[in-house]
Amino acid sequence: MTRDAACELCAQPGGLLVHRTARWRVIRAADADHPGFYRVIWNAHVAEWTDLPPADRGAMLAAVEAVEQVLRDRLKPTKINLASLGNVVPHLHWHVIARFEWDARWPQPVWASRQRDVAGAEQRLALPLDLLDQAVARALAALA
Amino acid sequence: MTRDAACELCAQPGGLLVHRTARWRVIRAADADHPGFYRVIWNAHVAEWTDLPPADRGAMLAAVEAVEQVLRDRLKPTKINLASLGNVVPHLHWHVIARFEWDARWPQPVWASRQRDVAGAEQRLALPLDLLDQAVARALAALA
Repeated sequence: MTRDAACELCAQPGGLLVHRTARWRVIRAADADHPGFYRVIWNAHVAEWTDLPPADRGAMLAAVEAVEQVLRDRLKPTKINLASLGNVVPHLHWHVIARFEWDARWPQPVWASRQRDVAGAEQRLALPLDLLDQAVARALAALA
Repeated sequence: MTRDAACELCAQPGGLLVHRTARWRVIRAADADHPGFYRVIWNAHVAEWTDLPPADRGAMLAAVEAVEQVLRDRLKPTKINLASLGNVVPHLHWHVIARFEWDARWPQPVWASRQRDVAGAEQRLALPLDLLDQAVARALAALA
């Protein structure tokens, strides 16, 4: 598997590991402002989406879609945000983020400046994060 | 086709129209800071990626990938950024953006605050935008 010694997503999980397969893994980001925030990370060091062979894109996208569906079902977010940027860490990963009208940066993307201070965002979710992680892990395990 | 009378992407093309099919269209955004910036817009009013039936997702993703590939081939960007956000306009669209180390917000996402002033960004591209639009349109026409 291709690795880059200088890449933090080659060296570390990149967040709280929720589910891992041979090709990709899903972590939950530790973002107090946006608690329903997961990333699907390709395990090998690949930069761009179209660097992946189509079959691998399909496998990774299925994981992105499974996370999106769990977030929609369990959290009823105002909107899902999907993004593959990688400017800072050019190792292919998809952000899958549940966004809410009450969140700290709504309606801006999570990378914009804070629009308001929101205390206890995690407690506003419809279920505790450990149960959400379990629901995400079950959905991902069902893909295999 | 589902339409929302209050939605600007139901009422207007949403940018310079580059290619249109029955289900989706591609426009170029008028963003002087990030000139290699296209959007793939689903024509019907749908909010979330997983609202689309899988076959439609495949058709839309093929368009996203075709735009990405043209941008990579023609502009040799530092990175491609892909995103489907829709917080402000909840009508399904994918941003496909060529990013460069010299651009005004690098390495931040284009929605973050400006990191530097860059005059004449369009002139720094490897080819004029009208020729880039033509290359994108040809790649998209070849999908049908």
